Amino acid sequence: MKLVRYGKPGAEKPGLLDAEGKVRDLSAVVPDIAGEVLGRESLKRLRSLDPASLPLAPTGERFGACVGRVGNFIAVGLNYADHAAESGMAVPPEPVLFNKAPSCVVGPDDTILIPRGSEKTDWEVELAIVIGERASYVSEAEALDYVAGYCICNDISERAYQIERSGQWMKGKGCPTFGPIGPWLVTTDEVDTADLSMKLSVNGETVQDGSTATMVYKVPFLVHYISQFMILEPGDVITTGTPPGVGMGMKPPRYLKAGDRMEVTIAGLGLQRQTVAQG
Amino acid sequence: MKLVRYGKPGAEKPGLLDAEGKVRDLSAVVPDIAGEVLGRESLKRLRSLDPASLPLAPTGERFGACVGRVGNFIAVGLNYADHAAESGMAVPPEPVLFNKAPSCVVGPDDTILIPRGSEKTDWEVELAIVIGERASYVSEAEALDYVAGYCICNDISERAYQIERSGQWMKGKGCPTFGPIGPWLVTTDEVDTADLSMKLSVNGETVQDGSTATMVYKVPFLVHYISQFMILEPGDVITTGTPPGVGMGMKPPRYLKAGDRMEVTIAGLGLQRQTVAQG
Repeated sequence: MKLVRYGKPGAEKPGLLDAEGKVRDLSAVVPDIAGEVLGRESLKRLRSLDPASLPLAPTGERFGACVGRVGNFIAVGLNYADHAAESGMAVPPEPVLFNKAPSCVVGPDDTILIPRGSEKTDWEVELAIVIGERASYVSEAEALDYVAGYCICNDISERAYQIERSGQWMKGKGCPTFGPIGPWLVTTDEVDTADLSMKLSVNGETVQDGSTATMVYKVPFLVHYISQFMILEPGDVITTGTPPGVGMGMKPPRYLKAGDRMEVTIAGLGLQRQTVAQG
Repeated sequence: MKLVRYGKPGAEKPGLLDAEGKVRDLSAVVPDIAGEVLGRESLKRLRSLDPASLPLAPTGERFGACVGRVGNFIAVGLNYADHAAESGMAVPPEPVLFNKAPSCVVGPDDTILIPRGSEKTDWEVELAIVIGERASYVSEAEALDYVAGYCICNDISERAYQIERSGQWMKGKGCPTFGPIGPWLVTTDEVDTADLSMKLSVNGETVQDGSTATMVYKVPFLVHYISQFMILEPGDVITTGTPPGVGMGMKPPRYLKAGDRMEVTIAGLGLQRQTVAQG
């Protein structure tokens, strides 16, 4: 099942994709694709609906972030061995975690804003996990029971803010518009995360071309691991790290500038298309 | 004005303290002390009410966290020169920021749980800022216009998770129950943050005895500074660092154990009383 949120920013409606890829309106069934709606029983109920019985959404609507009211937006750093190498860092002995401000969440095709004063705004195609059930101290074996599904995240990053501005990475990870997620939240029954192609292009040139096959710490381990440190709640999002090909790793480094266009895709999870502007 | 949330966990009602310190029920006026209710116009409206016209809450009710639905829970590190010294770290050239998981927020007198496997759970009395208006790229001069008020935060920290577990501090800062805030949200018109006494005792022994006078980066600067990196939203909480006297800085270090009792107070902001238990 592919769940979406569509409509104007701040007024998105819940929907699902039918077999023909058309958006069906779920407004009469659930208030939003958020919180408790992401739970096991709720998803089972949505799956039991006949999409043809739901009204068609108007065509050409904007997609919003595929999850509403994201609570905790957690990110995993250096989770692809080749990306760690290009960043000049070692693969860590256990996952590195940091936060993106929930206020940076935007729709998959929304404009990406370069922060005022930024010179090092960069891209990162990532597989994101959407939490469906409250998870605390869960085992690796049961971890997927707490996951609603997956989506694409472009983990936009300001490298100077992240690395050169006193300490912790979160300063360069949660700037406005730095968290496009979607277009679809694809439920776990439709996704095998073992080997998904992931690509990101800038102005038509493919700069990242990787696969989830080279993730160091896999989805069930990450959910288990993070749940040892904090309670995960429905609507929390965990973005799981990026393969090689970020701008910071190029020689010389290359960063985003106003007018650049990105396309971001992961097999089975759809496509994001973003234009870059000065914030 | 002193705003509170009272009642059972997850079912707290909004209230305010009257001149005699009794809790008056605001349920008929606002849905919660959260989000848009924290905005300027909303607070002005609450201030215009005659407390005597509001029903008295039942006596002896538990206080919940003084802010509901905390979105982004941001913390400032090493913001007191003496605490930086006891931590063996330099005062940073600009504020160090990290996140606490919003899911760690609890009431001011709720039981603090030592995480499973933890050996280094520590305390930190802190002044917390509650954001009332959306703030992005705000100046230091106008920063306080975006603040609803202040409360006490005991920034509970697991030092091994924070420092010894690969990278970023957030792993040791957002464990379940690590964020007691309250008992009161005191609006900005009643608080001068220049020199507030702040104390924390463990089992009756005063271990922290400081003042906001020795904060390195002050409240208006912090709100301005953080708003350059991320959008702050109503209901976000910024806890602003701790004075000396944490367990990690003692020789030998001293950490919390089940059965310990803490009292945490900041002048004008009330008192927290917590018992520690194994999680």
